[in-house]
Amino acid sequence: MTAEESGRASGAPVIALDAMGGDLAPRETVLGAAEAAGPDLEVILTGRREQIETHLAEAGGSGHVHIVEAGDVIGFDEEPTRAVRSKDDSSLVRAFDEVAQGRADGIVSAGNTGATMAAAMIKLRRIKGLKRPGLCAVLPTPGGPTVFIDVGANSEVRSAHLLEFANMASIFASEVFDRDSPSVGLVSIGEESIKGNEVVQEAHKLMAESPSLNFYGNVEGRDIVRNVVDVVVTDGFTGNVCLKLMESTSALVIEQVRKVAESSFSSKVGGMLLKRGMREFKRSIDPEVYSGAYLLGVRGLVVVCHGNSSSKAIANAIRIAARAVEHATVEKIADRIGSL
Amino acid sequence: MTAEESGRASGAPVIALDAMGGDLAPRETVLGAAEAAGPDLEVILTGRREQIETHLAEAGGSGHVHIVEAGDVIGFDEEPTRAVRSKDDSSLVRAFDEVAQGRADGIVSAGNTGATMAAAMIKLRRIKGLKRPGLCAVLPTPGGPTVFIDVGANSEVRSAHLLEFANMASIFASEVFDRDSPSVGLVSIGEESIKGNEVVQEAHKLMAESPSLNFYGNVEGRDIVRNVVDVVVTDGFTGNVCLKLMESTSALVIEQVRKVAESSFSSKVGGMLLKRGMREFKRSIDPEVYSGAYLLGVRGLVVVCHGNSSSKAIANAIRIAARAVEHATVEKIADRIGSL
Repeated sequence: MTAEESGRASGAPVIALDAMGGDLAPRETVLGAAEAAGPDLEVILTGRREQIETHLAEAGGSGHVHIVEAGDVIGFDEEPTRAVRSKDDSSLVRAFDEVAQGRADGIVSAGNTGATMAAAMIKLRRIKGLKRPGLCAVLPTPGGPTVFIDVGANSEVRSAHLLEFANMASIFASEVFDRDSPSVGLVSIGEESIKGNEVVQEAHKLMAESPSLNFYGNVEGRDIVRNVVDVVVTDGFTGNVCLKLMESTSALVIEQVRKVAESSFSSKVGGMLLKRGMREFKRSIDPEVYSGAYLLGVRGLVVVCHGNSSSKAIANAIRIAARAVEHATVEKIADRIGSL
Repeated sequence: MTAEESGRASGAPVIALDAMGGDLAPRETVLGAAEAAGPDLEVILTGRREQIETHLAEAGGSGHVHIVEAGDVIGFDEEPTRAVRSKDDSSLVRAFDEVAQGRADGIVSAGNTGATMAAAMIKLRRIKGLKRPGLCAVLPTPGGPTVFIDVGANSEVRSAHLLEFANMASIFASEVFDRDSPSVGLVSIGEESIKGNEVVQEAHKLMAESPSLNFYGNVEGRDIVRNVVDVVVTDGFTGNVCLKLMESTSALVIEQVRKVAESSFSSKVGGMLLKRGMREFKRSIDPEVYSGAYLLGVRGLVVVCHGNSSSKAIANAIRIAARAVEHATVEKIADRIGSL
């Protein structure tokens, strides 16, 4: 593929998508790519050309979607590092190659999460001076998106890593979600700076002293979903547990409301009358809107989507990745890290 | 007070209650005590006799509630350890003295949480051989209560502490909530034993090898509220963050449903028709039912209630404490810890 074919010449962001990754791939990935692509956003799909072309035709085709052939696929149960190292011709590795070789600016994958993370570390360089990349999720909280970092890349951290997460997520929130000087909260078990474990107490100090951060102070578990701050920082163990807990707690409550609405005749009528509003509410907290997690700290934005991502989720992830590229998020993170 | 006055002679469990602790004390604490007390459950109230007697009279009196005068109160903003050491005549310290001196079997307090924990450590001895007491909460999950430990006593733990928590909570679940051989899950960020940080990986090994535990394996954040296991074990940092996050996430979703029910005429009618069912649902996940957290590992059960506990919450906490006493939970925990 030439630079012109990939859209690179036009100056539009180019996002590589692992077309074969995900439970619903390649159909939903290809449809999502076709939905997101346009004159301002080029997509490179890696995978089996024939299958991709079938679904592209289904979507009515797109002059802004390009194909890079990859004959192999990394499955969900494969050991991540081994798979990445041995499967050069897999759709995932090919997609990373597009970024590593400068033909694409970011990558989206709904495939094996571990393999995506491993490929990010192996194929893309870390930002200079950065100790640890961090994975952030965007929470659909009522007052607007909350950026939550780290949701699983680092199950063990030191205070300096938390400071890096805070800075990277702060830039992400300001560039991608237009937060002006985003406020940053550190997860702990009490508001006072002396609360929490040793790493958190040290990180509190570092963040409070950091001139580049708009540091709010500690936040507690309850504050994470309450828009108390724009950016919530924690280690990858706590963050991962919290993210999954939030998802299942809200699903559980919605499920119970549904049960109530089916429990008697008058409740059934009530439930029917509420249906439209509930649908809108569910849409407002729909994880597909901010679909997936964003790995910050490597040269190129990496978006890890849910395995069961729909075309809509894929399209949104591609759009957010493109927005991050347009705002030179990676470069701004590199500058900030250099100044720490 | 003689043994007979305190009800000790009757063989009924005796629970000490800090009558002055809590935002709504002493009215709600005294009413709660009167509600829970009876021929099978004696309550000792510590605090200002005159105020206690006024509210006791309001409740119609009770021959099973006893008063121990305490002239002082520990406030919510006092430094815990200093307050406990200096305020001998406070209602909290007096309540602990009742347990320490064998006149009561357990204690309930809705006052300063830190001071309650500090008093537990200072006034009551740890169970012999135990390294760290743990604080457990009882989650009102749909399939029945889930015992969740540690929710804040230890923000830094070693793997041996997690093993102790697992054993103590396992006994608590089986004695107080009639779980037969309760299944125990360890919070991590993946099911495989190699997932999570180093402490969790070591704890996984210890638990898997422990003949006294019905160890399920790792559970993830999403599983905590899904009744995957009867007992969920984690460190006090993660547990505290999760507990508060769960509470605010479900409150948030319920609040959004309420907003939907007020958003249009048909939704309003729908909401009205659902009201009764929703009330029942809210009651089913009402934190007041299992009110408060239970400190396991000291000689005497300590129940830490929310500061804004109602009489109903206080009464439930007293009943659960009494049930734990009847089932000799502390003694059984001591036996188990001795055998570890």
